Amino acid sequence: MSNSNSVTIVEVGPRDGLQNEATLISVADKVALIEQLANAGLRKIEAGSFVSPKWVPQMADSGAVFDQLKRKPGVAYTALTPNMRGFEAAVAARADEVAVFGAASEAFSQKNINCSIEESIARFEPVMAAAKAAGIPVRGYVSCVVDCPYDGAIDPQQVTRVAKQLLALGCYEISLGDTIGTGTPNTIRRMLNAVLEEVPAAQLAIHCHDTYGQAIANIHTALELGIRTVDSSVGGLGGCPYAKGAAGNVATEDVVYLTHGLGFATGVDLPKLVETSHNIAKILGKPNQSKVANAMRVG
Amino acid sequence: MSNSNSVTIVEVGPRDGLQNEATLISVADKVALIEQLANAGLRKIEAGSFVSPKWVPQMADSGAVFDQLKRKPGVAYTALTPNMRGFEAAVAARADEVAVFGAASEAFSQKNINCSIEESIARFEPVMAAAKAAGIPVRGYVSCVVDCPYDGAIDPQQVTRVAKQLLALGCYEISLGDTIGTGTPNTIRRMLNAVLEEVPAAQLAIHCHDTYGQAIANIHTALELGIRTVDSSVGGLGGCPYAKGAAGNVATEDVVYLTHGLGFATGVDLPKLVETSHNIAKILGKPNQSKVANAMRVG
Repeated sequence: MSNSNSVTIVEVGPRDGLQNEATLISVADKVALIEQLANAGLRKIEAGSFVSPKWVPQMADSGAVFDQLKRKPGVAYTALTPNMRGFEAAVAARADEVAVFGAASEAFSQKNINCSIEESIARFEPVMAAAKAAGIPVRGYVSCVVDCPYDGAIDPQQVTRVAKQLLALGCYEISLGDTIGTGTPNTIRRMLNAVLEEVPAAQLAIHCHDTYGQAIANIHTALELGIRTVDSSVGGLGGCPYAKGAAGNVATEDVVYLTHGLGFATGVDLPKLVETSHNIAKILGKPNQSKVANAMRVG
Repeated sequence: MSNSNSVTIVEVGPRDGLQNEATLISVADKVALIEQLANAGLRKIEAGSFVSPKWVPQMADSGAVFDQLKRKPGVAYTALTPNMRGFEAAVAARADEVAVFGAASEAFSQKNINCSIEESIARFEPVMAAAKAAGIPVRGYVSCVVDCPYDGAIDPQQVTRVAKQLLALGCYEISLGDTIGTGTPNTIRRMLNAVLEEVPAAQLAIHCHDTYGQAIANIHTALELGIRTVDSSVGGLGGCPYAKGAAGNVATEDVVYLTHGLGFATGVDLPKLVETSHNIAKILGKPNQSKVANAMRVG
């Protein structure tokens, strides 16, 4: 690795987080959140999603968010784009990067997007070709890399297969998602060791949910295996659609605390991030899910 | 290690947990909590503390709790006993085991118990002698093994020194406490490696606070180094006296989930433990602090 002493944090709060919050917030509040995250030093921010508003009403205003955003140089503002229509909207919104998503579980793919894993990947082909022509990097998400809510344990070879297919299609990086947060360090290690046999660490990211409180231990395990890109969500935004009241995304503050404690640089200013976290928790009217944010709260 | 595939959980919720909760609960509720914990398979339960009620009003009724407890065979009900008066009360209450506590930080010792580390250890001598004569095992707690709220970083050699002194005095096990929860896997590993050079893993326990969300990763690190005894508190009972609203003890459920996920046996029935956890959270009228308990909540 060229830069083994630094960790890239991909902040998914404004998209993956807010999409799974019950409370809808205004475009202005979303823009403020994204701008505060950039000011706290995050350099990669998933700012929205260009999907049908029928599926995801929380993201119906992503065009307006991108439009009103005051962009900070050096920060990539990214968007989820499942199809050509979404991709074209993302280009119109001047997204710096887009993302497509597949699953490592056949049952999850069927129930979540109504098609097989193979079909879902085939559907991305026009997006990939258009992104290549436009010079826009594409990230690939793979969900259910450890367990699936319908299928149970997932074969690490299946994760490797899907990751390689998305890379072959042109994705520059694959984010491996423990979507239901059931992984523990041993299952995460087993999965990563399988994928790392065929994909270099520099092309991989880890995306952990903290539903069972294991995310920080799992991320630590991934860092020990050479992974240097970690997805997280400010204040732990985003619940778990499979267990009401349970936690979803790991909190960015807790990941930053871990990585700084391990001696990695992230470029993130933790006090500024904590302030951002309390601001959005206040807007949502819910307790902050980050332990670090609660420990560092002043007054 | 004779039993490397099992982990002993020392449940500290009824003492260390409730002592740091703002709400006082009745003897009957404490007894019910302890009995439910035993029924969930916990075999070592810190059930009370025999200290001056002026210092710790939450524990003033420990004698009544021990008295009314229906004891389950094979379960050790333990008590904290800082001095001879406390030890005698613990004997009268038929505690199966007692514990004394020191700090690895000079400033913490001074501010917390008004004496130097050396003086605090000397004060335990009569308790240790009396316990030996009575055939009661004594556990030693060492606090601030990574950082101190007053002194900052603690030299691992200092931790080793205090641990060895308590063992020399007759403690059968030393619980190493990251009292303010600031440790990350690297600082925990550095501290444990130093102690393990002079003390076998079988005589050590790890006691992590989750104030900064690092407890499960830190406990995983300790398990990797051969530690097989872990302190935890059902539902994460007990806040952090150094940061209002912040988390304290790591939740037993989350530790059980980790250890079972890693293939260790604990003897704990997780659904029963989760039920116990929701029962006490309801009595205290506060949100459950365990991620696993919230994920496994039914309905």
